[in-house]
Amino acid sequence: MTSGVDLAGQSHQRASVLLRRWLAETHTPVSEGPLRLTVGPLRLGTDVLYRSPTGAHGFGAIHVLDEAGDPAAIADPALLAAACSADARARALPDAPINAAEAGSLVDWVLHALPRHRLDPLPLTDDLVAVARSVSDAAEAQRWLVANVEGRLLPAALGWEGDRAAATTELLTRGPLAVIGLLGRRGVVHEEDLLAELRKRLRGVAEAHPTAGWLVEHWLTSPTLTDLAALNGSDLRYRDGSGQVEVRPVPFEVPNPLWEGAAEAPGVPLPELGDGWSLRPVRVVGDDGGPDVALVHRWMNTEHVAVNWNQAWPREQWRAELAGQLGGQHSLPCVVGRDGRDLGYLELYRVQRDKLARCYPHDPHDLGVHIALGEPDAVGRGLGSALLRAVARGLLEADPACLRVVAEPNVHNGASVGAFGKAGFRRSGEVGLPNKNSALMVFARE
Amino acid sequence: MTSGVDLAGQSHQRASVLLRRWLAETHTPVSEGPLRLTVGPLRLGTDVLYRSPTGAHGFGAIHVLDEAGDPAAIADPALLAAACSADARARALPDAPINAAEAGSLVDWVLHALPRHRLDPLPLTDDLVAVARSVSDAAEAQRWLVANVEGRLLPAALGWEGDRAAATTELLTRGPLAVIGLLGRRGVVHEEDLLAELRKRLRGVAEAHPTAGWLVEHWLTSPTLTDLAALNGSDLRYRDGSGQVEVRPVPFEVPNPLWEGAAEAPGVPLPELGDGWSLRPVRVVGDDGGPDVALVHRWMNTEHVAVNWNQAWPREQWRAELAGQLGGQHSLPCVVGRDGRDLGYLELYRVQRDKLARCYPHDPHDLGVHIALGEPDAVGRGLGSALLRAVARGLLEADPACLRVVAEPNVHNGASVGAFGKAGFRRSGEVGLPNKNSALMVFARE
Repeated sequence: MTSGVDLAGQSHQRASVLLRRWLAETHTPVSEGPLRLTVGPLRLGTDVLYRSPTGAHGFGAIHVLDEAGDPAAIADPALLAAACSADARARALPDAPINAAEAGSLVDWVLHALPRHRLDPLPLTDDLVAVARSVSDAAEAQRWLVANVEGRLLPAALGWEGDRAAATTELLTRGPLAVIGLLGRRGVVHEEDLLAELRKRLRGVAEAHPTAGWLVEHWLTSPTLTDLAALNGSDLRYRDGSGQVEVRPVPFEVPNPLWEGAAEAPGVPLPELGDGWSLRPVRVVGDDGGPDVALVHRWMNTEHVAVNWNQAWPREQWRAELAGQLGGQHSLPCVVGRDGRDLGYLELYRVQRDKLARCYPHDPHDLGVHIALGEPDAVGRGLGSALLRAVARGLLEADPACLRVVAEPNVHNGASVGAFGKAGFRRSGEVGLPNKNSALMVFARE
Repeated sequence: MTSGVDLAGQSHQRASVLLRRWLAETHTPVSEGPLRLTVGPLRLGTDVLYRSPTGAHGFGAIHVLDEAGDPAAIADPALLAAACSADARARALPDAPINAAEAGSLVDWVLHALPRHRLDPLPLTDDLVAVARSVSDAAEAQRWLVANVEGRLLPAALGWEGDRAAATTELLTRGPLAVIGLLGRRGVVHEEDLLAELRKRLRGVAEAHPTAGWLVEHWLTSPTLTDLAALNGSDLRYRDGSGQVEVRPVPFEVPNPLWEGAAEAPGVPLPELGDGWSLRPVRVVGDDGGPDVALVHRWMNTEHVAVNWNQAWPREQWRAELAGQLGGQHSLPCVVGRDGRDLGYLELYRVQRDKLARCYPHDPHDLGVHIALGEPDAVGRGLGSALLRAVARGLLEADPACLRVVAEPNVHNGASVGAFGKAGFRRSGEVGLPNKNSALMVFARE
């Protein structure tokens, strides 16, 4: 009979698996130390005791926080599963597969998994788990890694006939990268050392085997890699057609720990819009920020903007925000006008410096746009889509190295998704972010 | 900050609350020692460390069992909530309120309760909780009880204008009986001593205050009392009309710990059915039980019977079962025939000796009936309802003290519920039993 201590440990392991997945699937950045987050109806708190470059983080006790922010209870696996399911369902559209009654929920998985001693909705294969448990020092880990690259990864990559995402998932993210993470969390290796070794081996493979190069080159140069999501995707299902519990995961992108970074992207250019539009960077002047800050503050506190931006802040906070943006290379805040009248607020940004960089395989020159038509009488007249088209064209013209302009409206904001579509942006997928599921909208250079 | 040990204790307290409620609401008998049960998709195991006559049982660690019956994990409160909800939903009809999406589930309650430090979906009032926590010995408990009867229960009972169920819940089961249970589990009192004192005081009240007698008399003489269910009733809801989490309980009956038992009921009479029907007690003869045992065994292994009775046992097991019934006073197993041909199996039983005795305020002379038309060609021709009417009339005639004949078909068995209805039985409610929700069907003497 298993002891109570072991059982408590298993409960923490299960909760940690779920938290780790939630953090990855919502592209939440993690650093060591206290971590607070909101998962659906729950506020949670824990300590990140080990921060893993491959996402295999280790946590202290995971607590539900009360309204005062103090620990109220241990966040048991079933509770985390219920919170993750409530969260994922609320992020997705009502008619998404995850919201269909027959799709089940992560709680069904937990009820099914516990009597079967299962820890993870997407477990690694038994042989990889055995390696991750048995390897006892860094030298042994290196030997295993080399053998895996030569004996498994290379032959499979040479003969691969499926698509890139499936190859990446099966051969890399849920292969050696997952094992490296487990060994790192166990304290057997420094993950960065093994990642450097893997990078070196893959470069050798790419040089020696040009037919595998397309795949291996992608692994070395893409800022993100495909992994599988089990907690937070609109297309998830937890029951198959016959009602049996079976997790059907969806692909998503994680930061690539093999990537050594791209050439530094330049700052954000100010595009020419033409066609009666005017665009100027916000000016911050004087103690109160001056008239532009007053404008942005007023727009952000207008109901139709506040409901989507959630930034109905005091004027002083907006002054600081705008001054901060103007002082950096990430984002350029602008006032847009038409025929001489100021109508709204635009943020133009380099994806590489934005949270979006964790979410899709971007190019260092990709640019992004946030838009708020602040004047209520400017909304609903097709002005938004005309402006977005002018901005996208202007940005592609202003930075000849930029291949695409992107945006990430909330999937629930049908008006915004529709306006981007009308402007010529194509919906290329859905990405999870800590507070929403976004439609990734892409305006590509033709 | 709360310590880890306190939090673990709270988790066990929450899980215990849910288990205690589930046991009460499914009318499951409890004794001290190991307890194994199936709640929806989970098999659970625990030790009953304290068995309470008022249902305030105390448990050791509550485990999920694996397929081999060994502990696989601690059954956390959220997991128990998920299992109880799955169980309650499966017991109820698809169109029952508990199966409506907008009704929410017990998991919603847990997600809502934990950050608010709530332990119980139906908490006692703060003053009663304070009493249950602060009273430190038996003498103090007796003084409190007397004060409660004189100062609270009696004035409220004298002026009560609502119905009996509401009065019982508010003044008794969720009043002094609940406090007695909490003090018993704390080890401060012997519950039986306080129950004896309460009984004595209530007798005094009934004599001194004839206007409260109708209510107090019921409390002293009914085999069951009304309490509130929060986990297992078809009419439960966990969200109100606006979607806010709010448990809407349903009334149900619990065994009355004040009841001193009724006069011993006689054995089960063999009724005359008339109208071409014949009825004889099963005969068990010889090592293999003889022809009647062979008949019952064959019928029970016929698909249309097995699916409802779940007793497709080997012949030897049926021989033992039937011999056991014939040797006791609880139940009379019979073969029923028509026009000379054996058609099916009947069990006639005294409710007072059956599990049904825990579920509704029965009279000691109440009789119950289980029926299986074993011959497939006897089904679907209205024979069942004709037989049930003949049995009910025959039983009322055979025992002039019997006021009603009852049955408890599964609410999902529409054909059976319909046949009882057609025979003149009235559906008087729904009762939870460990493996099903039953429609309580009553054929009353006119």
